[in-house]
Amino acid sequence: MVSARERLAQQIRFIIEVDRLKEIFRQTVLINSRRAENDAEHSWHLCLIVITLAEHANSPQLDVLRVLKMLILHDLVEIDAGDTFAYDTKAMADQHEREAVAADRIFGLLPPDQALEFRALWDEFEARQTAEAKFAAAVDRFQPMLLNCQTEGAAWQKHGITRDRVLARNAHVAEGSTALWDYAARMIEQTVAAGHLQT
Amino acid sequence: MVSARERLAQQIRFIIEVDRLKEIFRQTVLINSRRAENDAEHSWHLCLIVITLAEHANSPQLDVLRVLKMLILHDLVEIDAGDTFAYDTKAMADQHEREAVAADRIFGLLPPDQALEFRALWDEFEARQTAEAKFAAAVDRFQPMLLNCQTEGAAWQKHGITRDRVLARNAHVAEGSTALWDYAARMIEQTVAAGHLQT
Repeated sequence: MVSARERLAQQIRFIIEVDRLKEIFRQTVLINSRRAENDAEHSWHLCLIVITLAEHANSPQLDVLRVLKMLILHDLVEIDAGDTFAYDTKAMADQHEREAVAADRIFGLLPPDQALEFRALWDEFEARQTAEAKFAAAVDRFQPMLLNCQTEGAAWQKHGITRDRVLARNAHVAEGSTALWDYAARMIEQTVAAGHLQT
Repeated sequence: MVSARERLAQQIRFIIEVDRLKEIFRQTVLINSRRAENDAEHSWHLCLIVITLAEHANSPQLDVLRVLKMLILHDLVEIDAGDTFAYDTKAMADQHEREAVAADRIFGLLPPDQALEFRALWDEFEARQTAEAKFAAAVDRFQPMLLNCQTEGAAWQKHGITRDRVLARNAHVAEGSTALWDYAARMIEQTVAAGHLQT
């Protein structure tokens, strides 16, 4: 039997390890400074979007706490597996496999009951079957689109991403929130019209 | 009557504005790169700590969702008011006044009902009277101590902060979690013993 004090010490070792999420940089850039965003900032922004926009979820009975837990944890696997750009089809081929190995190690730092709980939340997020996972995934796709549209399509321009690819890659936003997808579709057309996203 | 579409557009203007939280830098440095942490990363780390350590709160009936909402929002006022170092007694004199003006502007970007809800959460956090606010404040004080102890007392050394000041400034962690305060007190003594915090 592990003492409460040992249990807390183990949990804090996990909290120390995941400080690394702040060093995992993404393709998206910040609206003002235009430097690359990191996963910790991205995860916070998603949480803020959830508490602001939960009313627009397709499911009226959303468990907001579970959505937040998923989003707080969803990118921890990238500490080991790195960020995979949403349009990098080559890296996406083995993305889930690489991330599952990372999940074993990172959640495995926790006491066994909590490792199971957090892993189950990550699996739920990845499977995108529940109302909570669908809304979490919608917000996770909406936020980088919003930042791209606010920065003259920075990441899209850099990688030559076209409107069709943006629409195809992000259409599942509608599974979590049709209102958010309608907004995104209009925003994308405005970005095309402004010349910041190729057709 | 504002349409649902206009309401969503107003909420998204708020979401765009708060991207600036990622540009507000703190005195604490990250464990690995040792660069200054920003408020968005800090806020994410606090959320992760809450879902990991909620079982150690003094209150067994903690509303974890409300704790998370408070912490997601708690530093938004610093977009206008700037970060106030926890040991800067001069800046702390008018800190709440400056931050309350910022809260008026920033939460005021939202639809009125939501502006009121978020402002009430920030006021609750600041007042530190409820079990949720006490635990949120405990985590908000514990995390920078943890990062300081993991970085050879970087921010404390830079500003000549002594053990007595650290203990006095952070003692209210015990109001949210005695277990976390016991851990912190041991951690501080180890940091003193290692020569990274002056007595």
